[in-house]
Amino acid sequence: MLHAIVMAGGSGTRFWPASRAAMPKQLLPLAGHRTLIQDTVDRLDGLVDEQRIMVVTASRLLPVVRGQLPQVPEAGLVGEPCKRDTAPCIGLAALLVLRHDPQATMAVMPSDHVIVPAERFRMAIRQAEAIVEESPGRLVTFGIKPTYPAESFGYIQQGRPLTAETVLAAAVHAVARFREKPPASVAEEYLAAGNYLWNSGIFVWKATTILEALAAHQPECLERLKCIAAAWDTDQRDRVFAEEFAAIKAISIDYAVLEQAPDVAVIEAPFAWDDLGGWSAVARQLGSDRMGNTIVGKHLGIDSVRTIVHCSEDHLVVTMGLEDMLVVHTPDATLVADRAHEEAVRRVVTELEKLGWNEFL
Amino acid sequence: MLHAIVMAGGSGTRFWPASRAAMPKQLLPLAGHRTLIQDTVDRLDGLVDEQRIMVVTASRLLPVVRGQLPQVPEAGLVGEPCKRDTAPCIGLAALLVLRHDPQATMAVMPSDHVIVPAERFRMAIRQAEAIVEESPGRLVTFGIKPTYPAESFGYIQQGRPLTAETVLAAAVHAVARFREKPPASVAEEYLAAGNYLWNSGIFVWKATTILEALAAHQPECLERLKCIAAAWDTDQRDRVFAEEFAAIKAISIDYAVLEQAPDVAVIEAPFAWDDLGGWSAVARQLGSDRMGNTIVGKHLGIDSVRTIVHCSEDHLVVTMGLEDMLVVHTPDATLVADRAHEEAVRRVVTELEKLGWNEFL
Repeated sequence: MLHAIVMAGGSGTRFWPASRAAMPKQLLPLAGHRTLIQDTVDRLDGLVDEQRIMVVTASRLLPVVRGQLPQVPEAGLVGEPCKRDTAPCIGLAALLVLRHDPQATMAVMPSDHVIVPAERFRMAIRQAEAIVEESPGRLVTFGIKPTYPAESFGYIQQGRPLTAETVLAAAVHAVARFREKPPASVAEEYLAAGNYLWNSGIFVWKATTILEALAAHQPECLERLKCIAAAWDTDQRDRVFAEEFAAIKAISIDYAVLEQAPDVAVIEAPFAWDDLGGWSAVARQLGSDRMGNTIVGKHLGIDSVRTIVHCSEDHLVVTMGLEDMLVVHTPDATLVADRAHEEAVRRVVTELEKLGWNEFL
Repeated sequence: MLHAIVMAGGSGTRFWPASRAAMPKQLLPLAGHRTLIQDTVDRLDGLVDEQRIMVVTASRLLPVVRGQLPQVPEAGLVGEPCKRDTAPCIGLAALLVLRHDPQATMAVMPSDHVIVPAERFRMAIRQAEAIVEESPGRLVTFGIKPTYPAESFGYIQQGRPLTAETVLAAAVHAVARFREKPPASVAEEYLAAGNYLWNSGIFVWKATTILEALAAHQPECLERLKCIAAAWDTDQRDRVFAEEFAAIKAISIDYAVLEQAPDVAVIEAPFAWDDLGGWSAVARQLGSDRMGNTIVGKHLGIDSVRTIVHCSEDHLVVTMGLEDMLVVHTPDATLVADRAHEEAVRRVVTELEKLGWNEFL
């Protein structure tokens, strides 16, 4: 049966001060009325039964996640005691689902991307599920057709086609090679070559298959995860989870497994995708008025253009004479930045840490 | 004896959102730790006994003014029922001080200017007092040596010198003519001519003299003010004040009297003066760091230059990549503006009125 693993451990410092350590990006309604994690779980409706959804987040975020996702059973909420990237997260999820479903297939996905339409996402996941039913040893990943030479994504080079079903379904290729985030000139080459996709971080595989891959490439990690899984249904769970997880090396599933695995397929995503890497991406999702402004909250704009304002209905923001600016107001902190500095918003968090102004992190 | 009349009726829309209808400019600590009206009254220390200070403000502001000026006796606090510009304000003050001091000399001054050093201000007022003791029919005004061709001030053309005491005291001239706020080209001519001063709105005269001038030029205004003064020590004060004051035409003392009066002298102010016409004037007073930024409140600046930030210690403002910007944060409203638009800040108030967003006025 199909299980969904929603990875919700991101900290989203690029959205400071709207995103905080205690309220990261995935828990914010950045692209609409629902939060990104709520959209992610809503998107599974009709694809995965709620009893087979597992959300893995930071333990400190569990109360908020629980409040936002009342449909997910308590057993499906996992709170990591510390941050260890995606490989330990996915390995543990695989061990946990196997306890009740030895044939489990896992659809693994981030919790903070915008994906529309949902039906095309579900169709693509079903196609991936069919692939791993037919070839249980295969790891399936989803790639996004690049629209510009992005430097902030990993790339997947498509190899030979694995199916000709490109009319109703999406194109599937063997993965020739994974590529790290490239410099601009290399990204330009990838775009021109036409057979490179952005790595979306969405995967489908048999739980047993990913565990075999971990056993081959990250045996120590897997051993510790097995200790945690063995203690899961005992009163030792919290202690063992905290001790063993902390001892695991943080590593991404791409680096730990996918780049080494012999049989990886990539499906060209048949849906629109945006990882919401910053405020301009949010503005793209929300749209803008005829002056190019994107406004959320109570605002009065005078002679302002191409400006993003994000505030609440309780606080008025007035912008006057602004061009290409970003204004984010929250109850205790406000950011005013030139949009050319959008990539540097995460630097604010670094500076706040240096200053010891922890109440604003 | 010398009486001080502090005019505190201004609304200061140029400092929105820091200034509001309920908390205008003169009640804010824009240039230091004390508010402008507190600085104004502090400046009278050693010049005018507190029993002879009268503060005329809007009636709705009386509670705040009372709280800021505990040293001013209750009898010295006058709350106008409506706004009628400076002539009715000054005429009423003259009538009220004459009740107890028929020889009263009045020093009339705005409550929202920066004047330093205080000792030179007191010296100049004493000089004006000496002039009107010698020539009781003379109206004395103070002019400021222009430093740039300002379009936002009225000008006073100096006529023949009235004294040669220019070493220890300030130069005094007969007023040749008052000039309205000029266009830029005319202001340039005034500056080049060298015998024009900015009209500071600070005056010294005998109470009887200004009332004679009002009798000559604004007889109806004076009649109504006399009705108010006659009811002042009765239980009809509030009713008569409200009715008669509302019926008076709003008019400035300059336009009502000074431009017509035959014997007006102007003292070239021997003190530094700033009417704090906007945030850049505040920044001049407060000074700036080596990047040209002027900051009040909790702030983190990253790559920002020539930017003014005004917030509280309770709310963090982060600026990133800003040039020549203005950020003013208050609990319920925030303004972000290009400093080139500083003169237009008052337009925000007009727009808010149009929108009916009265809670932000």
